[in-house]
Amino acid sequence: MLGSTHGTLTTDSRRARVIACGEQPGPAVHGRPAEVDDLDVSGRPLYCDVPDLDRFFRPESVAVIGASDTEGRPNTGVTRQLVAWAERVGARLHPVHPTRPSVFGIPCSPSVADLPEQVDLAVLLVADPLPVVEELAEAKVKFAVVFASGFAETGEEGAAAQARLAAAVRRSGLRLLGPNTNLNAFERFRDDLDGPAIALITQSGHQGRPVFALQELGIRLSHWAPTGNEADLETADFLSYFAERPEVGAIACYLEGLKDGRSFLLAADRAARRKVPVVAVKVGRTETGARTAASHTGKLTGADAVVDAAMRQYGVIRVDGLDELQDTAALLARARPPHAEGVVVYSISGGTGAHFADLATEAGLRLPTLSDTKQVELHQWIPEYLNVANPVDNGGHPVGDWRGRKIIDAILDDPAVGVLICPVTGPFPPLSDKLVQDLVDAAERTDKLVCVVWGSPVGTEPAYREVLLGSSRVATFRTVGNCITAVRAYLDHHRFVAAYRSPLDEAPRTTSPSFRKAQALMRPGQQLSEHAAKQLLRAYGIRVPREQLVTSAAAAVRAAGQVGYPVVMKASGAQIAHKTELGLVKIELTSASQVRDAYRELTDIARYEGVCLDGVLVCQMVERGVEMVVGVTHDDLFGPTVTVGLGGVLVEVLRDTAVRVPPFGEEQARDMCGELRGRALLDGVRGRPPADLDALVEVILRVQRMALELGDELAELDINPLMVLPRGQGAVALDALAVCR
Amino acid sequence: MLGSTHGTLTTDSRRARVIACGEQPGPAVHGRPAEVDDLDVSGRPLYCDVPDLDRFFRPESVAVIGASDTEGRPNTGVTRQLVAWAERVGARLHPVHPTRPSVFGIPCSPSVADLPEQVDLAVLLVADPLPVVEELAEAKVKFAVVFASGFAETGEEGAAAQARLAAAVRRSGLRLLGPNTNLNAFERFRDDLDGPAIALITQSGHQGRPVFALQELGIRLSHWAPTGNEADLETADFLSYFAERPEVGAIACYLEGLKDGRSFLLAADRAARRKVPVVAVKVGRTETGARTAASHTGKLTGADAVVDAAMRQYGVIRVDGLDELQDTAALLARARPPHAEGVVVYSISGGTGAHFADLATEAGLRLPTLSDTKQVELHQWIPEYLNVANPVDNGGHPVGDWRGRKIIDAILDDPAVGVLICPVTGPFPPLSDKLVQDLVDAAERTDKLVCVVWGSPVGTEPAYREVLLGSSRVATFRTVGNCITAVRAYLDHHRFVAAYRSPLDEAPRTTSPSFRKAQALMRPGQQLSEHAAKQLLRAYGIRVPREQLVTSAAAAVRAAGQVGYPVVMKASGAQIAHKTELGLVKIELTSASQVRDAYRELTDIARYEGVCLDGVLVCQMVERGVEMVVGVTHDDLFGPTVTVGLGGVLVEVLRDTAVRVPPFGEEQARDMCGELRGRALLDGVRGRPPADLDALVEVILRVQRMALELGDELAELDINPLMVLPRGQGAVALDALAVCR
Repeated sequence: MLGSTHGTLTTDSRRARVIACGEQPGPAVHGRPAEVDDLDVSGRPLYCDVPDLDRFFRPESVAVIGASDTEGRPNTGVTRQLVAWAERVGARLHPVHPTRPSVFGIPCSPSVADLPEQVDLAVLLVADPLPVVEELAEAKVKFAVVFASGFAETGEEGAAAQARLAAAVRRSGLRLLGPNTNLNAFERFRDDLDGPAIALITQSGHQGRPVFALQELGIRLSHWAPTGNEADLETADFLSYFAERPEVGAIACYLEGLKDGRSFLLAADRAARRKVPVVAVKVGRTETGARTAASHTGKLTGADAVVDAAMRQYGVIRVDGLDELQDTAALLARARPPHAEGVVVYSISGGTGAHFADLATEAGLRLPTLSDTKQVELHQWIPEYLNVANPVDNGGHPVGDWRGRKIIDAILDDPAVGVLICPVTGPFPPLSDKLVQDLVDAAERTDKLVCVVWGSPVGTEPAYREVLLGSSRVATFRTVGNCITAVRAYLDHHRFVAAYRSPLDEAPRTTSPSFRKAQALMRPGQQLSEHAAKQLLRAYGIRVPREQLVTSAAAAVRAAGQVGYPVVMKASGAQIAHKTELGLVKIELTSASQVRDAYRELTDIARYEGVCLDGVLVCQMVERGVEMVVGVTHDDLFGPTVTVGLGGVLVEVLRDTAVRVPPFGEEQARDMCGELRGRALLDGVRGRPPADLDALVEVILRVQRMALELGDELAELDINPLMVLPRGQGAVALDALAVCR
Repeated sequence: MLGSTHGTLTTDSRRARVIACGEQPGPAVHGRPAEVDDLDVSGRPLYCDVPDLDRFFRPESVAVIGASDTEGRPNTGVTRQLVAWAERVGARLHPVHPTRPSVFGIPCSPSVADLPEQVDLAVLLVADPLPVVEELAEAKVKFAVVFASGFAETGEEGAAAQARLAAAVRRSGLRLLGPNTNLNAFERFRDDLDGPAIALITQSGHQGRPVFALQELGIRLSHWAPTGNEADLETADFLSYFAERPEVGAIACYLEGLKDGRSFLLAADRAARRKVPVVAVKVGRTETGARTAASHTGKLTGADAVVDAAMRQYGVIRVDGLDELQDTAALLARARPPHAEGVVVYSISGGTGAHFADLATEAGLRLPTLSDTKQVELHQWIPEYLNVANPVDNGGHPVGDWRGRKIIDAILDDPAVGVLICPVTGPFPPLSDKLVQDLVDAAERTDKLVCVVWGSPVGTEPAYREVLLGSSRVATFRTVGNCITAVRAYLDHHRFVAAYRSPLDEAPRTTSPSFRKAQALMRPGQQLSEHAAKQLLRAYGIRVPREQLVTSAAAAVRAAGQVGYPVVMKASGAQIAHKTELGLVKIELTSASQVRDAYRELTDIARYEGVCLDGVLVCQMVERGVEMVVGVTHDDLFGPTVTVGLGGVLVEVLRDTAVRVPPFGEEQARDMCGELRGRALLDGVRGRPPADLDALVEVILRVQRMALELGDELAELDINPLMVLPRGQGAVALDALAVCR
């Protein structure tokens, strides 16, 4: 079995899902409104609205509910920050307090109703925001930020309070950030930096701090959305909004969980269509991490392999450390698309180049050998005995004079080169200062990506602080690992978006003719018998062996004659698992007497084991191929997922499987097979013929269709084994398990 | 087949090896001198001399051959550095030049013979060092450093020149560093730092620069050995010397290749016995890296999986980036041994803690749940609703007052806690300054390891530069990844050395009774027939099926009767590979007529395929078990290695193998099996009984014995499959391939 994570949040009918995930009333939205037909056949939306958050991030007027200027009260600090911020950005700030005449010298309104104007944004510093929400709606306030904690992150009671808050917000027309959030959106952003910016989304304000600090290194940040518990506005809303903003070059996310898997994917799809890179840390690699994260903002973390696959399907770049998040997002925001995928490593020491090339190659970067002509050109300036094939080792001296710049330009001129990486182990004054200045100058005159790894642990050297960090064209790293991660992400991203065709455009919207046949076979709440499960597969055009269900030895012999010898016989019943271990399978039966004996033995064992049979299956024996498994399981976050793996003992021992979240196309199905560690088995080993990969891909796609059409009604499906025959001969489902909800 | 790397440097006889690897005449050595009986049965040494390098690193008098003070000449810069260095350390410096009266005002000697005193060290700045070596020997100079390049790193001709230099050095009694090295050993080291130091060995001076720069962060460095081409003094010499120095807390290595695998392991063994951690970057993860590195210093890189295994066997910690090398070596040099293995993550944000815990757990660190008592204690100072089970989230506020220190002390007091890690995302003045000061203060009063991850990308903050870097008790990191890598290495190292028993102490020194029997079976330059290979196994007590080699159908029938039905029949000949693919194996033969038919068919096919047979094997058919492979291959660097893997198609498709360099004990043999991804197959899956792991381990050890005793004469051995039967029933080699050299 492939292991299953039965969803707890999925609803029972497709209709209910439409209501839950469909249009949410709110202020003006970009683009067309969601329509009921913008749903796939499983009832999941194929389109997301982009909320207009301009006035949230740049409000002209702000009300502070619960403002204070009494020293020592927590609200006072927040009020002070907001007053300073409003002054800085030129927003009108209105404190609201029932009794105070003024706060920090600004006249107070006694209530929301008494505000002197219709405000864009209300900041709620009160412990219980629920009663205020209605007042805000009445006053036509557009946005609210709720600081209060004690909601879903604290357990059941808090979750209920959060649900009440969410319901009130839904009724109100207001859009709300929080609860359990903070003022990160209204920090002091540097406005003196140019070029494409990073927009930041965090589910823990604290974890966004290092990305925000990138501004001190000259990297522009345009927005910070600390989403907190996401009672209303969620990560996906900000993702799709940022993807539409012209100043945003990359979106950096720190995620602990997701409110809804589909809305995240729809937003990621929007970013992919617009070629905006999304880089994300997603906590939950381990059980420990998932549990701790869930208790922090009260969200679902999903099965990690599924999260991983879903992100890759939509081009979201997943990284682990915050330092990788910073370095990768900064590179992707600022670097122009590559002209070529070739990476050249250039250094003043053969050792440095060899070491870097080793790690870069291992990580999958392609270091093409430079052409003979180019090598001859480089040897004009670099001594003959040094290696300039790539890595290029200049031996040091040429860096110190006019040759240094010539070499760099010559490398960047090579059409096979997309990226130049220069690892500098640290300050070596006679050479490194000139080297980095040449790199910075050369980078100004090219579209190509120039990266420097500044290896010194010190980091106060002028060549680093002033020259390298002073350049917006050179991407500077402190570790080899982060440089390689970021460059890989850069090349992967541009390859991905160049080829991107949204799977959502091709998602099935209506049921296929198979659906009606399949529905008739479903038995709510039950595990189907093997025979019924195979009929389900047949309904979707998946080949199963010729077989008959019989209830007597005589019928078994007749069936064997029709199916054709040799046959396999198996006990069949609604709740049978582990047939082989129980001895409920007999193979290679070649005569009527063997069939008769087998029938008797199978029914005897079943009686002895207390297993209830609906009969005995007499099946065609299928020739040898590669045993695979294909299945459907439900994920808390993403709903039905499709898995493929190597069959038999291998799937149990090596867990060699690949998973995808529907909808996905043929290419992804093919990629799934390519991801398997044991994929060489499909190519044919030890003189065996290659397996029918096309047939396997076709089965995966048909299983996907089944998963989408039957939706939540199909709790679990497991074809094990699917015998993939030699090329051109198809694939046959030899056994199947189906569980209905 | 397991893949083989036939050695090119291994010698043909054990005697030759004794001469090559045995005692090398030289100046006084620590400890006992090498004796001829300090060899294992393969002729490899079991003991290494520790050269006395005191006068190399701290010479009282130095001659500079080829000294210059003419502006613009390369030797001038080097001479200037040496003069300054000699002045700083109080060494007497004597320039040697045939014509100059003085250099930088210091009187010159016209030749080595004219030096005013017997010098400790000669620095050779001349292009051809060979003629000088004899003069130096005559003048009883102890050490020489040779700068000149153009030796083994440039190709065959250079390698020959290097061999001549090495031979001259061997005759001379001099110890020589280089050629192709530099002045790194005589850099300006900070002498104001206390505590255990890092000693550094690099094969590329440039790559050592960042580790050397650690001194600017307050981390002490005691030595730097830039070994260059290692014509004489090699990495292993410095490794064993540093392992004996009391001021050395850890040895950091940057390795591109090794001169000799065994000498490296002997030095690593010495470090392990003395519990001195060795952290190494070893280039050569990929073919590209290996090739480029080889062309840099002209050394052998070895098969990477073998290097990796050899290092782990002797506790050498392998890392990839220079930043990991720095952070790991610095931590290991300075941290005291752990009291417990439990790691506690402590942060001022639940998100930070969850994220760190996720990555740490994934990397294999153990985060124990704190006891209820401890949690109650922590809740005195931390609000009830926050998680203090581990990770400990203090929510921020308690850090700002007296509670901050109480919390840290309470965590460190817990006997289950060995390491406290506090990720700080960056400066948040109201809290972070106080937090890091508390951590630094608490670390002063405990033996336990306190780590801080300073997450800000800026790195100029006083809390980081002054407070954290000012502490020698807190280990400070800039990335989560490096912190986790270093802490894992710290716990692994101490666990390793605590349990370390040198495999060299138990290595076989004399041949077993099996050896004589085996020798009689060897056929130099030939691949043995399956039957002969199995006899070789039998000689070493490895079980093979009952079988007889026959040359007629009638004899086959008689043999089958004696072996017992059912039987397997196989064509047997000296050069047959891929028997199964050629149809040269017949299984499950149950009658005399089947045996007769099989005999005819096998000999027909052999004739048809042009295969030369020495007969047909009639073998006992062995019941089902787990198919494994066990084999011997030769590595360029380390000589014979033993490999175990999952058999059949799996070893070809998944390359799921584990390798060890002899000598190794039973525990390592067991670990090899535990390393296999498919190890669960040995435990029994799908109701199969567990396999006889003890028997598998026994076979591995017997194969090791064979590899050691037959040495280079056995070029390759491959037992495939080894059928490991259910527990208590042993293991049987069903087929074997042996190639003699």
